[in-house]
Amino acid sequence: MSTSPPDTGTKYWSTQVSRVEDSRVLIRGYDLQDLIGGLTFSASCFLLIKGRLPAPNEITALDAVLNAVLDYGLYKPGTAAARYAVSGNPSMVAGMATAVLSAGSYTLAPEESARFITDAHTSRLANGETIADAAHRIVGTAADQKLRIPGFGHPAFKHLDPRAQKLKQIAVDSGVWGESAQLYEEIHRAFVATASPKKAEMPINDVGIMAAVLVELGFSPEEMTGLAVMSTLPGVIAHISEEMRSGKRIRVIPDEVADYPDTETKNFDKDWSASAWQPAL
Amino acid sequence: MSTSPPDTGTKYWSTQVSRVEDSRVLIRGYDLQDLIGGLTFSASCFLLIKGRLPAPNEITALDAVLNAVLDYGLYKPGTAAARYAVSGNPSMVAGMATAVLSAGSYTLAPEESARFITDAHTSRLANGETIADAAHRIVGTAADQKLRIPGFGHPAFKHLDPRAQKLKQIAVDSGVWGESAQLYEEIHRAFVATASPKKAEMPINDVGIMAAVLVELGFSPEEMTGLAVMSTLPGVIAHISEEMRSGKRIRVIPDEVADYPDTETKNFDKDWSASAWQPAL
Amino acid sequence: MSTSPPDTGTKYWSTQVSRVEDSRVLIRGYDLQDLIGGLTFSASCFLLIKGRLPAPNEITALDAVLNAVLDYGLYKPGTAAARYAVSGNPSMVAGMATAVLSAGSYTLAPEESARFITDAHTSRLANGETIADAAHRIVGTAADQKLRIPGFGHPAFKHLDPRAQKLKQIAVDSGVWGESAQLYEEIHRAFVATASPKKAEMPINDVGIMAAVLVELGFSPEEMTGLAVMSTLPGVIAHISEEMRSGKRIRVIPDEVADYPDTETKNFDKDWSASAWQPAL
Amino acid sequence: MSTSPPDTGTKYWSTQVSRVEDSRVLIRGYDLQDLIGGLTFSASCFLLIKGRLPAPNEITALDAVLNAVLDYGLYKPGTAAARYAVSGNPSMVAGMATAVLSAGSYTLAPEESARFITDAHTSRLANGETIADAAHRIVGTAADQKLRIPGFGHPAFKHLDPRAQKLKQIAVDSGVWGESAQLYEEIHRAFVATASPKKAEMPINDVGIMAAVLVELGFSPEEMTGLAVMSTLPGVIAHISEEMRSGKRIRVIPDEVADYPDTETKNFDKDWSASAWQPAL
Repeated sequence: MSTSPPDTGTKYWSTQVSRVEDSRVLIRGYDLQDLIGGLTFSASCFLLIKGRLPAPNEITALDAVLNAVLDYGLYKPGTAAARYAVSGNPSMVAGMATAVLSAGSYTLAPEESARFITDAHTSRLANGETIADAAHRIVGTAADQKLRIPGFGHPAFKHLDPRAQKLKQIAVDSGVWGESAQLYEEIHRAFVATASPKKAEMPINDVGIMAAVLVELGFSPEEMTGLAVMSTLPGVIAHISEEMRSGKRIRVIPDEVADYPDTETKNFDKDWSASAWQPAL
Repeated sequence: MSTSPPDTGTKYWSTQVSRVEDSRVLIRGYDLQDLIGGLTFSASCFLLIKGRLPAPNEITALDAVLNAVLDYGLYKPGTAAARYAVSGNPSMVAGMATAVLSAGSYTLAPEESARFITDAHTSRLANGETIADAAHRIVGTAADQKLRIPGFGHPAFKHLDPRAQKLKQIAVDSGVWGESAQLYEEIHRAFVATASPKKAEMPINDVGIMAAVLVELGFSPEEMTGLAVMSTLPGVIAHISEEMRSGKRIRVIPDEVADYPDTETKNFDKDWSASAWQPAL
Repeated sequence: MSTSPPDTGTKYWSTQVSRVEDSRVLIRGYDLQDLIGGLTFSASCFLLIKGRLPAPNEITALDAVLNAVLDYGLYKPGTAAARYAVSGNPSMVAGMATAVLSAGSYTLAPEESARFITDAHTSRLANGETIADAAHRIVGTAADQKLRIPGFGHPAFKHLDPRAQKLKQIAVDSGVWGESAQLYEEIHRAFVATASPKKAEMPINDVGIMAAVLVELGFSPEEMTGLAVMSTLPGVIAHISEEMRSGKRIRVIPDEVADYPDTETKNFDKDWSASAWQPAL
Repeated sequence: MSTSPPDTGTKYWSTQVSRVEDSRVLIRGYDLQDLIGGLTFSASCFLLIKGRLPAPNEITALDAVLNAVLDYGLYKPGTAAARYAVSGNPSMVAGMATAVLSAGSYTLAPEESARFITDAHTSRLANGETIADAAHRIVGTAADQKLRIPGFGHPAFKHLDPRAQKLKQIAVDSGVWGESAQLYEEIHRAFVATASPKKAEMPINDVGIMAAVLVELGFSPEEMTGLAVMSTLPGVIAHISEEMRSGKRIRVIPDEVADYPDTETKNFDKDWSASAWQPAL
């Protein structure tokens, strides 16, 4: 996230992302011709969104984040939705847009965790607390107010989410595991120490760690969602391609997994006549 | 479809659909305030797309078309895709857009039938043929060139599609079953008379009749797709509302209907090292 | 909104919206064949979403709601977005999906007003207040807490929004202007009586009245957004059709309305070398 | 593109893209945990879509392709559409889906060029021709049949498109500029040699070279569109983020670039009465 307020210019529209000149395209001020062959796609991704070139450790951390949730079998709403969509409309872009639209508050959005981490860090600085004290306070408040801490827990993993741990390790090794991320981890430790046995098994999940790393890299919550969604698109492209080659058209929900519980059949003429004479509400 | 070429004005953008004045909104020249309470939604739909008020018989025919494919259980790609999408992203507009995107060349698009009907009609007029002669010629040509005639055949119905017949009857009664539609029906008769026993069972299906009526009403093929898709949205809204109230999140493809046939597990370090030394292609 | 909790059946998926039998399709229990020619599209829309046939006055009110925001020149984000989209991807469904996605918390969503109206009504009943007393209390609380009341104010209209008034009049005449809607109007009166001169000019706008009528008709907030968005699609189809016939491809933001304020040109090789040696954060 | 036909298994759904096991996720057979930190995002992109690990030169070429069309000021339909969309619906995923949907047959789709290149290559092999002979034949046929050769010409560049040349150079240096790509280039030379002076200035453009490289890397035409669209998303995320921070809501088409040429105002009551008595068509 470019931290300075955008220079909005004097016309109705304004952008600082890129500009087109007579014989070249400037991407955040750099000639596109130099970026082709000069940067990996991940590095260009950083440049476009943040407005400056990344350092090598930032590229390493971002690449790890972009690999964290690559694909998940047929257990993702977006994958299922995209395959259904292209079975009726065999269009790559329609399928991709469909998958993008399946990401939101229940899945693939690190925004909530990111806001929690940022708020926790801000409150610690305001209070002049140690990381341990802040974690203790925040977990206590959450327990008192029965608030859920975002980014904890995973249906398949107990105590540790191996993918999340790998991502964290790379962030640590890259030097991008700063105080915000450390506080989030300390909050997890304090949470586990005081939680019920069942909740004490909850690891920081992949989205939680992803949010922690992206906070350290300075992305805004909305930009994080954009990155998380984009990182799933190679898998989406692969699924759409596989679906199109399957030769199946007009996919349905198979009867073996579908109920139609309302078995009543109604008489239209009878009900419509009755409805026609119904008095105003 | 407004038949005159659009007046494009002298500026970059131009529209004749509606305009906003100081104290009123003009829809195709009519004060919106008069349309509220003055027209049914179907009639306004006609006005907006065709640029003129419909006659009563046109409203009757259009209402019948808009009711022809209201919903289809869980057997529609768009319904499935929309329900998956909102199980991850609980947003009405995201779900609706998803359902819209599932319509295309395999489903819900009367465009192909419409172009066939229009071309058949145009060729008949050019040749100065009777409807019967044109139908004979067109079916013969299709047989010789092994071309599929669009709008024929339905998985559930033989000989007659009752919904399509009802729609046709209303069009006939409304006086909007003109020569294009009659030729299409005659083509169907000629097709059935000469087809193999199995193909001779194929009825004109709902999309075929829908296209025939919409050709008579003067809509363009793209506008027909727009109308067909819009007509399914009340059902889509109902499905999305039902899905959101179900309380289920992050829908998956259930294991009982999913195969993961590639059981091979590969060794990343080994393959990556090998790959790293692979010579250029 | 069907008020009973959905019967979820015993399988993974379940729906009560429609079912397909061997020789017919049942829509909320009614044979689709009877609805074709039996109902207007607006009435079918009511049936699909609410699960029962509408009374005549409900159809009248719903038709008025569906006509309230038909189109708005080139002043709607969704219209602009859809026209840009099809200038790159000439697809009716892609354009329609794009317009749908432009509706949200800043436009075309009566959800917020609907929740306000429903909450106000519920609190009045809980308190056993008269409509006047409840309105006085609610406006006072909003003023104290500096809360904005949704659905008030319009950029073009002062004191009265003529479209909103027309819509209300039809709802009154149809007998669907009940206590919730009356309370909302009384809240507006109390607000105007105590507001600053500038705010006292604010009318109830079209979305506010639309929400009030849809609350009386018993739709859920999400369903209201679905209906509002669907009601704009005839206009969207007309705009897309007009755009496709314009012959223009790859629309841009014209230079006369675009600024590119960041004029700095950077040197990639220099900055990239420097970046490469940057220490960890 | 995985070249073997997909093993569809025996159940309704089947995938070979990834699978979820008790304690790990397998991506094309590899443990996701190994890919995090083991591959760049571009390399994972190759793995997911093609089903095997890339060689280093393939990663280099793919990274160059993914950087070729990063952003283009406010001259892209998808950028404009996405910014309009989020001005009404401030949602990152809605904006991204909107941008995706603006890609199609007029922009950002290398599919047409890819099919041309593949067909040319296939016909050369079938005829046993040299590259020069095949190029001569193909350009002659195109001239006779007045066919446009896809991927030639750019509004801003004459003779050479510098971005396209840079991309080609990297492909050559990486050893992924094979016979298909060479034939395409030879076709361009033969075209220029025989074209009118104006057409002789046409370079191979960025999309043409992108298609040539992606053909050599073995992607299917649909997968190429997926990759091209995905490669623009960092720019899209940046534009959406910039738009959201601008504080502007409900963007319109500014009056200075909009015409409303149809100035006629019509009388609803008069026309509607007349329409009501119009005889059947």
